[in-house]
Amino acid sequence: MSAAARHPLDEVFHPRSIAVVGASSSQPETGWVARLLMAGYTGTIYPVNPRAAEISGLKAYPTVRDIPGEVDYVIFNVPARLAPQVMEDCAARRVRAVHIYTAGFSETGKEEDRLVEERVAAIARAGNVRIIGPNCMGMYYPAVGITFNPLFSREPGTVAFISQTGAGSTRFVYLANGKGIDFSKVVSYGNAVDLDAPDFLEYLAGDPETEIVACYIEGVRDGRRFLEAVKKCLAQKPVIIMKAGLTESGARAAASHTSSLAGSKAAWDAFFRQTGAVCVDSLEEITDVVLVLKYMPCPRGRRVGIVGRGGGIGVIAADICESVGLNVPPFRGETRQQLERLIPEAGAGARNPVETGRSISGAADFYAEGLRIVDADPEIDVILTHIAVDVYGGRHPRLKEQLLGTVEKLADTARNLAKPLVAVLYAGDTVEEVAAVLQARPRLLEAGIPVYSTVEAAARAISRYIDYSARKELMATE
Amino acid sequence: MSAAARHPLDEVFHPRSIAVVGASSSQPETGWVARLLMAGYTGTIYPVNPRAAEISGLKAYPTVRDIPGEVDYVIFNVPARLAPQVMEDCAARRVRAVHIYTAGFSETGKEEDRLVEERVAAIARAGNVRIIGPNCMGMYYPAVGITFNPLFSREPGTVAFISQTGAGSTRFVYLANGKGIDFSKVVSYGNAVDLDAPDFLEYLAGDPETEIVACYIEGVRDGRRFLEAVKKCLAQKPVIIMKAGLTESGARAAASHTSSLAGSKAAWDAFFRQTGAVCVDSLEEITDVVLVLKYMPCPRGRRVGIVGRGGGIGVIAADICESVGLNVPPFRGETRQQLERLIPEAGAGARNPVETGRSISGAADFYAEGLRIVDADPEIDVILTHIAVDVYGGRHPRLKEQLLGTVEKLADTARNLAKPLVAVLYAGDTVEEVAAVLQARPRLLEAGIPVYSTVEAAARAISRYIDYSARKELMATE
Repeated sequence: MSAAARHPLDEVFHPRSIAVVGASSSQPETGWVARLLMAGYTGTIYPVNPRAAEISGLKAYPTVRDIPGEVDYVIFNVPARLAPQVMEDCAARRVRAVHIYTAGFSETGKEEDRLVEERVAAIARAGNVRIIGPNCMGMYYPAVGITFNPLFSREPGTVAFISQTGAGSTRFVYLANGKGIDFSKVVSYGNAVDLDAPDFLEYLAGDPETEIVACYIEGVRDGRRFLEAVKKCLAQKPVIIMKAGLTESGARAAASHTSSLAGSKAAWDAFFRQTGAVCVDSLEEITDVVLVLKYMPCPRGRRVGIVGRGGGIGVIAADICESVGLNVPPFRGETRQQLERLIPEAGAGARNPVETGRSISGAADFYAEGLRIVDADPEIDVILTHIAVDVYGGRHPRLKEQLLGTVEKLADTARNLAKPLVAVLYAGDTVEEVAAVLQARPRLLEAGIPVYSTVEAAARAISRYIDYSARKELMATE
Repeated sequence: MSAAARHPLDEVFHPRSIAVVGASSSQPETGWVARLLMAGYTGTIYPVNPRAAEISGLKAYPTVRDIPGEVDYVIFNVPARLAPQVMEDCAARRVRAVHIYTAGFSETGKEEDRLVEERVAAIARAGNVRIIGPNCMGMYYPAVGITFNPLFSREPGTVAFISQTGAGSTRFVYLANGKGIDFSKVVSYGNAVDLDAPDFLEYLAGDPETEIVACYIEGVRDGRRFLEAVKKCLAQKPVIIMKAGLTESGARAAASHTSSLAGSKAAWDAFFRQTGAVCVDSLEEITDVVLVLKYMPCPRGRRVGIVGRGGGIGVIAADICESVGLNVPPFRGETRQQLERLIPEAGAGARNPVETGRSISGAADFYAEGLRIVDADPEIDVILTHIAVDVYGGRHPRLKEQLLGTVEKLADTARNLAKPLVAVLYAGDTVEEVAAVLQARPRLLEAGIPVYSTVEAAARAISRYIDYSARKELMATE
């Protein structure tokens, strides 16, 4: 077994059996038992429901105490008021960990609900039962077949995500899966009455299955411990954090949502400066940063060569690059001369940004030679190419084939470039364009090219990557 | 005839005949003549090409001088070096206006190209010929059947767009059409050697077909005149401006693109303060602002009630609202009590943001009563509802029907609300979700509900709307 296997949380992540208390007998096909079956969980599953003999083909038990074998992990799908009794049963049966899906605890703001949560936590502590939750989606761990949504990818990946949002985690995993990102482990842990961000971070620091750690955080109980856990993790791998609730309105919403104390913006700014964790502003941006971390080496500097069609689109792209901390310097004379020979009609477009040929096949024709010219300019550190699928292909009957042909050319050329390259595929609001982009995207990822839908997303991810790497180098020399 | 009909530019916009010089005989189906035919232009079209007898079924002429009838408008699709001769012909034939599509003039940065541009302009001035361009896409005026892209909507609308980006204009019109926005007139005017932004703005100020004016500007020649033209237009209707080239990299790119002097950020900040024009950061954002202006009354204040599913998604939405200058205040006690009675399971979700029911039909069930409760809260000025199509519907076989059912409920309820409402439909990266959203969007627009793809876009548009209206009121009282 690996080093991670010896961590106390390893038991939480590798249950040999799972009981579902409050297993649905009325809609078994969408319930927790069905989710485990569909995700391919290979341990033993025990449905618990006093009013059912069998659920999804498995024998059901009236309570956890009635289960004959060992029970490692229990999912609570019962009203909050029943949770103390279920936890008593879990403690009696030496259950190692539970996931309390149910909401209606301290996050309601009502004293009686807070007291129930406290009581559940006290019973668990006394019985050595670890808690994920309450008020959360629990675990998605494709390698062992645990999930809170059977539609998530079943492919294991190398990104871990720990999160205080449940529905947001679902959005995030869909979003990430769609961009070619698979997961080692995802944990939605809600109110964090027991296991909290630091526990997961300490575990993930040594988890050989995880190469990148991402977090959605509303609040932390023990700021010092969180800081240390993030540092420990960062010493091993990149940590990306989206901190929600940094505005007054957001902080109030976070208090209602997970009873979190959001903390001040100043304190969190200091936290990011001190740790060097990658700070992002949205769930979408987590995926943006994961893509650069996962698919390309870090650029050596902030000088971007922009390649694409459309003068105004190039101006806008240059503005965006600079506004996120990158530069778009003029090419050196030799580069310009070579580009002008290649695209004689576009004298203007040989400076940076570069104008490619006019049609989508024009872009393809340009790539083979044009990208090599830009790549050779010593004043350029990274290449960003944008393909306006809407303008080029706008309702073209053979859009899919055309776009595929262009990205194949791009992928072929990119293999021989010395500098990292990212691609932006703009799709308009048509099903055809979206379909073409979804088909083209994996080809680029296979070639190690991160793909984005906007220049802003691409440029910001590059900038964050450079910040992160610079900070890491600095810390290594300190 | 209306007042606008007497404006000198009216002749430019209403040509009785159009000649296309350099009409394509090799690919007539994609050429300028075909575009006019496909757009339904009802005036006379004269293809000009010395090597063709007929193009797209119309008799072709060797030069403009050879055309038998009057020629009001000429599209130049010839290399820059031939432009002076063609302009001589136009002047001789008393052409009123030309659109020089061709690039390769002053924007190349080469002295010889700048001189050609100057010569063309001088010939035009002497002959009283107005110029749109060079280096641009020209006009899209669906009501008279002039277009630079036959795939644009043929429906006339009430939004005008004047622009120094050609490919960007194509992107923008596709984008806008897809969001239910149609146009009175679009002009891509490139290097603006003659007709410039102030000319178009002065015309649009009095144009009865135009209710909202939007601009993409890289640089202006005469700042004073531009300011006065924007003010004149603003006295009649909203003006939205995207100013590109405000960073060093962007300014350099703008100089290459349209040989524009971009101007300093400080000067442009002062311009926006002084005029009250709506300042936006992207082409996408122009459409965002148009939607609120077009579809809803301005909220009386900045207090947003957020309604949707997902606690963390609500926290993120609240943060976004506040970061763009809106507030998400807690509801008053009565509102909360009513919401708690309606959604007993979500004690936490009755404060603001509100949690709706769990499924997409749960959201539909909530809307009828829930929105009325939020609407009645005197501390709320505007309602933002978000529907996570990805989380709710994620790969649901009947997603389209489900989403349509939900938006119908939303539309029905919205009709009886006192306060403005905007909707956010999050679609994930699947063709099915995009298709469902594209089908649902028009239903909401028909009910007067602006629809967005992100909370950020919606919140920023609301905030810009309030800024604009406040500024307008202030100016009226000054």
